[in-house]
Amino acid sequence: MNARKGPSTIRAALIQQRYYGSKKSTIEATLRHIDEAARQGARLVILQELHQSEYFCQCEDPAFFDYAADFEADVVFWGNVAARYGVVLVTSLFEERAPGLYHNTAVVFERDSTVAGRYRKMHIPDDPGFYEKFYFTPGDLGFEPIDTSVGRLGVLVCWDQWYPEAARIMALKGAQVLIYPTAIGYLECPKDRRDKLCEEENTPQERRKMLEAWIAVQRGHAVANGVPVLTVNRIGTEWDPSGMLGGIRFWGHSFAFGPQGETLAMGAEEEETLLVDLDLDAGETVRKIWPFLRDRRIESYKCLLERYCDGTGLKPF
Amino acid sequence: MNARKGPSTIRAALIQQRYYGSKKSTIEATLRHIDEAARQGARLVILQELHQSEYFCQCEDPAFFDYAADFEADVVFWGNVAARYGVVLVTSLFEERAPGLYHNTAVVFERDSTVAGRYRKMHIPDDPGFYEKFYFTPGDLGFEPIDTSVGRLGVLVCWDQWYPEAARIMALKGAQVLIYPTAIGYLECPKDRRDKLCEEENTPQERRKMLEAWIAVQRGHAVANGVPVLTVNRIGTEWDPSGMLGGIRFWGHSFAFGPQGETLAMGAEEEETLLVDLDLDAGETVRKIWPFLRDRRIESYKCLLERYCDGTGLKPF
Repeated sequence: MNARKGPSTIRAALIQQRYYGSKKSTIEATLRHIDEAARQGARLVILQELHQSEYFCQCEDPAFFDYAADFEADVVFWGNVAARYGVVLVTSLFEERAPGLYHNTAVVFERDSTVAGRYRKMHIPDDPGFYEKFYFTPGDLGFEPIDTSVGRLGVLVCWDQWYPEAARIMALKGAQVLIYPTAIGYLECPKDRRDKLCEEENTPQERRKMLEAWIAVQRGHAVANGVPVLTVNRIGTEWDPSGMLGGIRFWGHSFAFGPQGETLAMGAEEEETLLVDLDLDAGETVRKIWPFLRDRRIESYKCLLERYCDGTGLKPF
Repeated sequence: MNARKGPSTIRAALIQQRYYGSKKSTIEATLRHIDEAARQGARLVILQELHQSEYFCQCEDPAFFDYAADFEADVVFWGNVAARYGVVLVTSLFEERAPGLYHNTAVVFERDSTVAGRYRKMHIPDDPGFYEKFYFTPGDLGFEPIDTSVGRLGVLVCWDQWYPEAARIMALKGAQVLIYPTAIGYLECPKDRRDKLCEEENTPQERRKMLEAWIAVQRGHAVANGVPVLTVNRIGTEWDPSGMLGGIRFWGHSFAFGPQGETLAMGAEEEETLLVDLDLDAGETVRKIWPFLRDRRIESYKCLLERYCDGTGLKPF
C-alpha cells in the first residue's frame, strides 16, 4: 500500500545491559546480545543511550570529549554490525561535529550497513549527576522520523521522553513507532558522608515514584499518538569519576507499549534482551476508533510555541 | 507570595454518580453528595460531565437541545449551591448561546456564588455512542485557566483529556491543577441481536485496555507538566433512547494523580465521592528537580500547529 512501510509485524530486540569497564568489553557483550537476538529472529535492534561507554555525564570533565573523536569510526563499525547480523540497528553515539561542538546522536543503520538516518538529541538535561549540557549541544536536525526497511522510526533520546511535543511531532510526521535509547537511574548517596537530603530522596517509595513517573509519561505518548513506544535503558551502578556524587544505579526497566498503551514487554533491573513482536500497523487500526488526530485544535495551540504564556516573552516567530 | 494562589493544601471532592432518571432527582443526589463533602472539609468540588442529565449524546435527537434552554437558570442555581456549601464548584453544563449554537461548557463558581470563569469544551468527539459533534460547537475561549480562591484551575472536559496540547497549554498559562469532568464508558452490545464485532470489542481484556489507556494518558499529563490531575467520571448504565445502540456502561474510576503521576485517589465503578487532600504547591517543588519547562525546544515545535506535517496542508498562520 505504501512504500515507506515495511512488513507489518516485526520482532524487535531491546538490549538492556551494563557497562563492562571498557569500550572493548562493553561492545563484546553488546555483540553477543545482538547475535542472540538475531538468531531469535529480531529484525530491529535497539541499544541504550551511549552504549559504548560508561554514562560519563556524572561529572564535567573535558577528558571525556575524547570519546567523541572516534565517531566516524564508530559509524563504520556499527554499520558493519548491522550488516553482519542483518538487522536494522538503532545506536546511540557521542558525535564530534567540530572542535568544541558535540552531539548526543542516535544513528540508525539499515541492514546493508548504510546509515538510514541520524537524530541529534534535541532536549538536553542538566541536573545533579546528569550534566549533559556541558557535553552536548542541542540537536539541530529537528524531529524527523527515519525511514528503514522495517518501518518509519521515530527515534528520540532519553530526556526527550518527558516531552509530549517531541512524541506528537514524530507522530505527525508519520512515525510508526517511538524509540528511546535511555540512561536513567537512581542517584546513590555518597557512602563516606551522611547526606540527609539524598537519603530522603532515595527511600524505596521515592524511587518507585520516579520509576513509575518515567514509565507513565511514555505510556501516555503511546496512547495520545496511537503508536507503540520502545524504550531501552541501561542497568548497573556506575560511580562518579570525580567522587563528588555517589554514583547512579541505572534502573533498567526497558519496556514496550502498544498503541493503546498496553504493555507488550517490561524489563527488570538486570542485563537482559526484551524481544517484542511489534505490529507496526496496529496504530492505524487504533486511530480509526480513537481518532485523536482528527480533532486537534491547531488554531488554538499557538501557546505551545512560547516559552511560557505569560505575555512577557518575545514571540519566536 | 503570589496573589493568584490560594492556600497550599486544599481538600477536593470528586463526585462520581449515576443518573437518577430525571434532572430533579439527579440534582438532589448531587446536593446530598456536596453537602457531605463540605461537611468533611472539601473546599473544591468537581462534578462529572453533563451532571444534570443523562449522557444524551448516545443518539442525535434535536429534542435534547431543550436541555440547554435552562443554561442561564442553571448558572444561577449552581452559583447558589456553591455559596450555600461554601465551596469552589466545577460544573459541566449544556450551554445555549444562540439558536442553533450550543456548547459543552464547564462553569466554575466561587464560594460567594459568582462565576469565576467558564471553559467551553475545545475538542469534540464523535464516535459510535458519543455523537457530540451533533450537539456541541467546539469552544472558542481557548485554553484559559480559571482563577479561584483555591488556586488557578486548568479546567478541561472529557475528550480534551486525550490531548497533551491542552494540558501543556494550561500548564504554560500557570494552571496549578488539571481538572476533567468526564463521561466515558464501555459500549454495551445490543441485547436483541448478535453483534460479533461488539462482543469482540467488549471482552474483559479489551475493556481493561481502554480503561487503562484512559488513565495512562492523563497520568502522563501530570508527569509531563508537574501538575496534579483530577478527573471525575460518571457511573451507571444508560440506554440509548433511540434503541440503535446497546447503551453505555460508564466506568467510573474517577482519580487524582499528583504532580509526579503518583496516585492520590482511584475510584471504583460505584457511586462515591473521592476526597483528596491536594498540595497545589507540590508541583513547584517537583519542577525544580524535573525542570521540563526549562528545556522545551520551542523554535522546533512549529509542526504542532499543523494538521499533519506532510507538507500538503496550508499553514494556519
